[in-house]
Amino acid sequence: MEAYSDIGLVGLAVMGENLALNIERQGFSVAVFNRTGEKTTRFLAGRARGKALAAAYSLPELTGLLRRPRKIMLMVKAGRPVDEIIGQLLPHLEAGDILLDCGNSHFEDTRRRNARLAQAGVLFLGVGVSGGEEGALNGPSIMIGGNEEAYRELAGLFNRIAARAAGTPCAFYFGPDGAGHYVKMIHNGIEYADMQLIAESYHLLKAAVGLEAEEMAEVFRTWNEGELESFLIEITAEILARPDEESGRPLVEMIRDQAEQKGTGKWTCQSALELGVPAPTITEAVYARGLSALKAERVEAARAFPGPNPRYAGDKEKFLAALRDALYAAKICSYAQGFALLRAAGQAYGWELDLSRAALVWRSGCIIRAGFLDRIAEAYGKSPGLVNLMLDPFFRERLNRAQAGWRRVVASAKELGIATPALSSSLDYFDGYRTADLPANLIQAQRDYFGAHMFERTDRPGKFHVVWQDEVQGAGNN
Amino acid sequence: MEAYSDIGLVGLAVMGENLALNIERQGFSVAVFNRTGEKTTRFLAGRARGKALAAAYSLPELTGLLRRPRKIMLMVKAGRPVDEIIGQLLPHLEAGDILLDCGNSHFEDTRRRNARLAQAGVLFLGVGVSGGEEGALNGPSIMIGGNEEAYRELAGLFNRIAARAAGTPCAFYFGPDGAGHYVKMIHNGIEYADMQLIAESYHLLKAAVGLEAEEMAEVFRTWNEGELESFLIEITAEILARPDEESGRPLVEMIRDQAEQKGTGKWTCQSALELGVPAPTITEAVYARGLSALKAERVEAARAFPGPNPRYAGDKEKFLAALRDALYAAKICSYAQGFALLRAAGQAYGWELDLSRAALVWRSGCIIRAGFLDRIAEAYGKSPGLVNLMLDPFFRERLNRAQAGWRRVVASAKELGIATPALSSSLDYFDGYRTADLPANLIQAQRDYFGAHMFERTDRPGKFHVVWQDEVQGAGNN
Repeated sequence: MEAYSDIGLVGLAVMGENLALNIERQGFSVAVFNRTGEKTTRFLAGRARGKALAAAYSLPELTGLLRRPRKIMLMVKAGRPVDEIIGQLLPHLEAGDILLDCGNSHFEDTRRRNARLAQAGVLFLGVGVSGGEEGALNGPSIMIGGNEEAYRELAGLFNRIAARAAGTPCAFYFGPDGAGHYVKMIHNGIEYADMQLIAESYHLLKAAVGLEAEEMAEVFRTWNEGELESFLIEITAEILARPDEESGRPLVEMIRDQAEQKGTGKWTCQSALELGVPAPTITEAVYARGLSALKAERVEAARAFPGPNPRYAGDKEKFLAALRDALYAAKICSYAQGFALLRAAGQAYGWELDLSRAALVWRSGCIIRAGFLDRIAEAYGKSPGLVNLMLDPFFRERLNRAQAGWRRVVASAKELGIATPALSSSLDYFDGYRTADLPANLIQAQRDYFGAHMFERTDRPGKFHVVWQDEVQGAGNN
Repeated sequence: MEAYSDIGLVGLAVMGENLALNIERQGFSVAVFNRTGEKTTRFLAGRARGKALAAAYSLPELTGLLRRPRKIMLMVKAGRPVDEIIGQLLPHLEAGDILLDCGNSHFEDTRRRNARLAQAGVLFLGVGVSGGEEGALNGPSIMIGGNEEAYRELAGLFNRIAARAAGTPCAFYFGPDGAGHYVKMIHNGIEYADMQLIAESYHLLKAAVGLEAEEMAEVFRTWNEGELESFLIEITAEILARPDEESGRPLVEMIRDQAEQKGTGKWTCQSALELGVPAPTITEAVYARGLSALKAERVEAARAFPGPNPRYAGDKEKFLAALRDALYAAKICSYAQGFALLRAAGQAYGWELDLSRAALVWRSGCIIRAGFLDRIAEAYGKSPGLVNLMLDPFFRERLNRAQAGWRRVVASAKELGIATPALSSSLDYFDGYRTADLPANLIQAQRDYFGAHMFERTDRPGKFHVVWQDEVQGAGNN
C-alpha cells in the first residue's frame, strides 16, 4: 500500500510542474492531477522520475491519496476553470480540508470563493505566487490570504519553498480571504509603473540625449549601482547591451514597439478607481501599453503632427543626473500609490494589512525586487499608520532633493515633444499632494451651480447652496 | 370611467416629477406611482393640479391605468431599486409592453436587464437623461438605447420633450441594450475632464499669473466669446464674479477645495481600462477629485515639501494666450478619448454607434453643451470611420496651431510646481499618439526576459524568444 502524500496539486502547466518539484525538493510528498492524463504520465516519467510524486488520474483518486486534513493546491487558469475544479473537488472533500488557489485570481473571486467554501467547512487560501516559472521552481515570492488556521498548517511548507531575502523567507500571510491575491495584484501594478518609467527614461536617453544602445546600457549599469538598484534596471542594462545575432545591431531596436498585457495592471487601476485612491502613475503605465498597440494610428499621426526637435540642447551630464533623480522620485510616487491602495483596501475589506510585510515579501523572488524595498519596509515598520509613503522622513528628503532635476526633465520632455506619461503624472501627483489649496473649490461651485449639489465653506461648518443666477440654464448629476 | 393614460411613470423624486410635468405639457396623459403614496397625493394636489396626471397607489393599479401596449418610465435610483421595481412590475405586464429605465444606470446593468426582459417579451429601453432637474422639466438631452421597435413607438414623445439645438431635438436612438446609457456615461466622463481642465486653468491664472477673481472672470468671459464657448466656461465666469454676500470677498475663495463625485466618471475610466482604450485626461480628472478629498494630508504635505516660487516671470499676455491654446488643445484630447471609447464600445458590444449623433445629442440640454460639438458632429459626419478625433483635418490644424503654447504652459506648470494633471496628461496623450516609435520595444524585451512572453520584430513576421542570459534570475506573468 502506498503511503499518503503530504499535498495534492492540480494543474500541470509549467508553473504547476515547477511548484510540485520545488515542494518535493523541500521534503514533502506530492500527488498530482491534470485534466488530461497524458500530461501527468509524461511528467511522472520525465522530470518527476524517481521523486516523491504520485500520479492521480481523477479527482476522487487524488483526494484518496492525501493525508488528512487534505491540502490541495490549484494551479489552474484564473477565472472559470478555478470555479469548475472547486465544484468538482468539493464532493470529495471533508470539513477541515484545505484548498489553496495559487493562480493569478482576481481578489474579488477569491473573496467569493472563500465565503462559499467556508459554508462547506473547507478552509481556503488565496495565494499570490510571483516569480513565474523560474520562481516556482527555485523560490517564488508568496503572498498568502485566507483562513488563518490553514495558513498555520502550511506555514512551514511556504517558508521552505519561498525565495529568501537576508535569510528571511519571502512568504507572508496578509489577512483573510482576498488579501494575498490583492497584494499580488498591487505587485503587478507597481511592476507596470516601474517598467514604463524605465521605458520613458530609455526614450529620453535615446531621443533627447542621443545616446547609442551601448551607452544607454552603461547608464543603466551605473544607476543599478546606486539607489535605483533593482532587478528591472539590471535587466534593462543587459537588454540594451545585447546585439541581434544576425545584424549585429542592438536587438532592442529590432523589437516591435507594441506592448502586451495580461490584466493585473488593469485590475489595479480599476480597484484604485473603485476605492477612490489616486493611482495615476500606474494607470498611465497601463494606458501607455494600450497606446503602444495602436501602431498604425501612431504612424499616421506622426505625419499629421510634426513636433519640435526632440534633441536636448543643454548640458548632457546634468540632464543624465536630473533624469536619474526623476526616475527615482517617480518610482517613489508609484510605490506611494501602490501602498496607499494596500492601505485603503485593507480598511475597505477588513484585512488589517501589514504594509511593511508587503515590502518585505517583494525583496526577493519577484520582478520588482530591489534594495529600495528595505527602505519601504523600514518606513512602515516605524510608522504602521503612515498615510502616504512620500511623508516618511527618508523618502521626503529624497523627494525634496530630487525635485529640481525631476521638474527640469519633465518640463524638457514637454518642450521637446517626448511623451513621458508616467514621469509627468508622478510629478503632478506629487505637486497635487503637496498643494494645501487645490482648485477643487471651483469644481464644487460648478456642481452647485448646475446640479444644486451644495458645497462646504472654509470659514464655517455646514453645507451651502447658492442660486447662482435667476434663471438656471441646466442641471446635471455629477 | 377614466380614460387610459398614455404613459406611466414610477418614482416621484424631483427628476421624476419634472419629467412627468414636461411630458404632460407636450400633450400626453401620465399616470404616476411612487413607493410612498403620500408623495403621490402631494404631487397631484400641488404641482400636478389641473393637469392630465392620474395617481396610482399600487403597481397593479398603475398598469391598469395604461393604454396598451403599456409604456412605463422608471425614474428610480440606479442599482438594486431598478431590479426590484422590474421584478414587481413584471407579473402585471404583457408581451409588447415597454419599460424605460431613465435613471443613471450602469450600461452593463442595462444590458443584463434587456436580456432578462426580452425573455418575458417586454420591450426595454435604457435611456440616459442629461440636464438634471431643470432639463427634465424644460428639455433634457436624451440618449436612447434598447429595443428599436419600442424606440419607434416613443420617438414622437422623446422628440417633443427634449432640448433643441438649431431646431433639432437632442434625442437620439444609439443602438441595442446599453447603448444609450453608455453614451450618457461618456458624456459624464467628458464633463469631469472639462471641469478639471477649467479648474487647472483657474489655478494657473491665480497662482502663476496672480490674477484676482474679477480679472479671472473677465478672462473666462473673453474665452467664452471664442472657440472655447461653452456652458461650463460661461458659468465659470459667473462663479468667479460672484461675491460672498456677507464678506464681499469672491465666494469661490470661501468654498472648500474638496470635490465630490457620484460614480459615472469612475465608470468611464473602468470601461476605458476594460476596453484597453487610453483615457488619461478623463482618468486624471477623476483622480484629481480623489486627491482633493485628502485635505488633511495635503495640508501636512504642503509643509513637508516646499516647492518653487509659483509666480510666472514671463510675459503675462503671452501666457494667457498660451493657456487658452492649452485649454482648447487639452479639451480636444479629452473629447478624442471619449469618442475613441464610444467607437471601441460600439464595436465591442455590437451597437454600431453613430458618433456624429453623439456630438449632436450633446449640443443642448446637457452640461457639456458647446459650439465645439458642431465641429465634432461635422468630423464624424464626413468620416464615420474616423479612428481618432485628433486626426480630423479641422482638429488636426487646431492642435498643430496650439502645440507651442500648450507645451509652454505645461512645462511652466512643472517648473512652477503647479499640479496640472489633466493638461499634462492630454499633452502626453497627444505626444504618445504622434510618436511612430514608442519605447514599448524595451517593455516587450523585459517581458520576454523575465517571463518568456515573446516579442515581434520590425524586420520580419513571427514571434520570437531570446534566452537573454544563461541563468534566468526570475520570471513573471505580466
